[in-house]
Amino acid sequence: MDRNQLINLIKQKQSFLCVGLDSDLSKIPQHLLDSDDPVFEFNRRIIDATLPFTVAYKPNLAFYESRGAAGMRSLLKTMDYLETVKDECFTIADAKRGDIGNTSTQYARAFFDKASSGFDFDAVTVAPYMGEDSVSPFLAFENKWVILLALTSNKGAFDFQTTGDPEGQKLFARVLTTSQQWGSPANMMYVVGATRATMLAEVRQLVPDHFLLVPGVGAQGGSLAEVAQYGMTHDCGLLVNASRSILFASADEDFAVKAAAEAGSMQAEMKQLMMLKGII
Amino acid sequence: MDRNQLINLIKQKQSFLCVGLDSDLSKIPQHLLDSDDPVFEFNRRIIDATLPFTVAYKPNLAFYESRGAAGMRSLLKTMDYLETVKDECFTIADAKRGDIGNTSTQYARAFFDKASSGFDFDAVTVAPYMGEDSVSPFLAFENKWVILLALTSNKGAFDFQTTGDPEGQKLFARVLTTSQQWGSPANMMYVVGATRATMLAEVRQLVPDHFLLVPGVGAQGGSLAEVAQYGMTHDCGLLVNASRSILFASADEDFAVKAAAEAGSMQAEMKQLMMLKGII
Repeated sequence: MDRNQLINLIKQKQSFLCVGLDSDLSKIPQHLLDSDDPVFEFNRRIIDATLPFTVAYKPNLAFYESRGAAGMRSLLKTMDYLETVKDECFTIADAKRGDIGNTSTQYARAFFDKASSGFDFDAVTVAPYMGEDSVSPFLAFENKWVILLALTSNKGAFDFQTTGDPEGQKLFARVLTTSQQWGSPANMMYVVGATRATMLAEVRQLVPDHFLLVPGVGAQGGSLAEVAQYGMTHDCGLLVNASRSILFASADEDFAVKAAAEAGSMQAEMKQLMMLKGII
Repeated sequence: MDRNQLINLIKQKQSFLCVGLDSDLSKIPQHLLDSDDPVFEFNRRIIDATLPFTVAYKPNLAFYESRGAAGMRSLLKTMDYLETVKDECFTIADAKRGDIGNTSTQYARAFFDKASSGFDFDAVTVAPYMGEDSVSPFLAFENKWVILLALTSNKGAFDFQTTGDPEGQKLFARVLTTSQQWGSPANMMYVVGATRATMLAEVRQLVPDHFLLVPGVGAQGGSLAEVAQYGMTHDCGLLVNASRSILFASADEDFAVKAAAEAGSMQAEMKQLMMLKGII
């Protein structure tokens, strides 16, 4: 999915919601555990329930890899299911990869080259620590996206990301500035945590046009209105992720209904924020 | 495998060689392509040929993930094979993972919790960008190791890792200093590229006791003697990795013999360097 298609999808659904499929087997409703593949069953029903309100799905690879081959089968089935509605949603492999060039090329094939790996995500999250040659192999795939970590939503973000250099530029700002030479707003986004909403203004000065993937709204406590205030552009320019607050809105048989309600509520707020900005 | 066992293994084999299993299906000898699982067949013969000279094996996850379910089966069979010689080698998942706490816990299970994922590596490589809470979940597993990226062997290492802060401390030095509060020399190592051998002296001042995993000797051009000169401790304190120079020493039917010769040649040099240091 290219940038124009994504922007059109956002305007059409009046939403910039991304649902994170952090589908923890130990947290899904008990009654699903009898099915052949409980995690896929869970994901399928979450997708059905939330698709009207959602422009992107973001499986978190760790929750599938932790279950070995069975977990990867659940993920493959989930992605095959999303393939049937591929014009209705953008897909992100939340994998935080990044290695030397020939290795990053292999990681890119793992997520983008369906003939090789079975997966055909639109985007993958990448860690910037190893620099340009660890990122550029992902950008060599046409119509695919890198979502580079800049300022994350966790406490550990303050260990290194906010350290300044002698000119006062923080590491996350250096990542934003330097990496703009590697790709464009048409194939790169940045991860910026909602728990750092006021720092979004600083981020937007450096990357006025790039989409930002914003985790941390919901379970982690970030505010949607603040994210829009500091981060929204005339193209929207945001994908706001929620995972646990939607997936585990209920632990009972009504989980899908409650997930739809939670996603619907976020979408309604997003619609208001987009109208205020004159985007729709 | 704990630190003492690793040190004993190094002294007993008179080697600190780690063989990187970057087993690229497109590069393995043609005659293996007829077998059921060519990559596993390749790995098995490489392991048989190099085990006398080698103290660690380091599968590079990207080369398995790029082949989807078939690749992960090759890796699982390889690790089951290494399990049969587990007292003779340390195993490293070269995966460069790292995410917020609850996600890093899942990644740790993917590599350390055999009952959950099928894998029981001794160690996993982790990227430091997201800070303490992205690393500590791996350290919660008893008798398992984190190998944290500090100064990598690629060109992109100069994009961020060597940037100084206002006090002149470079990012990789800050990573080394800060992360010592998270673990100990008994459960953490650091990645330091051999292509930065002279910077090893700087690294050793900051982490005098930790093991260093050193890639970049061989295909990437680093020198073993320089690595020993600047990085070796009285416990050795080094695992030097070679991948392509051993795996692809020959593309013909003699690939295992040539791999053994290359590993043996490196072991012989390592033995000399350890004798010079008085370790053996």
